[in-house]
Amino acid sequence: MSLFGFTLKPRRPKSAETARDRLQILLAHERGRGREAPDYLPQLQRDIVAAIRKHVQVAEEGIDIRMERGDALSSLEINIELPER
Amino acid sequence: MSLFGFTLKPRRPKSAETARDRLQILLAHERGRGREAPDYLPQLQRDIVAAIRKHVQVAEEGIDIRMERGDALSSLEINIELPER
Repeated sequence: MSLFGFTLKPRRPKSAETARDRLQILLAHERGRGREAPDYLPQLQRDIVAAIRKHVQVAEEGIDIRMERGDALSSLEINIELPER
Repeated sequence: MSLFGFTLKPRRPKSAETARDRLQILLAHERGRGREAPDYLPQLQRDIVAAIRKHVQVAEEGIDIRMERGDALSSLEINIELPER
């Protein structure tokens, strides 16, 4: 069972939306009950963006990052608008 | 608007499920209409797993990867069961 409640099937893009290439990454870290766990989401976020930059040029203003931290669950969302080729 | 149709809020884990630490990564790459784009998902998948391994030991059998490739949209799902600490 997915941490997001179900396994995702990205929706078919609507024609108006397909002008730009886009990349979206969602990451959820679920920590077992009562266990302290190191919070490596911020560093993982930097590593993932660096990994993407190895393959495609990404402008700073083209990256939108949202992070939410809870006791049992932390989540990271990275939205990237890719350059026109 | 998310490539997955909405911005996700991971669900609260049910008590039975919180025995183990888990990490889930969903990645969607939407390619603009009629544009050929290099497919770097396989390499990106290896880079993301390598980035995670910098922070936590992950057994090969604890990693489940699913990839789907379409003309306009490719998606990658990485599910990782993290070791007990």
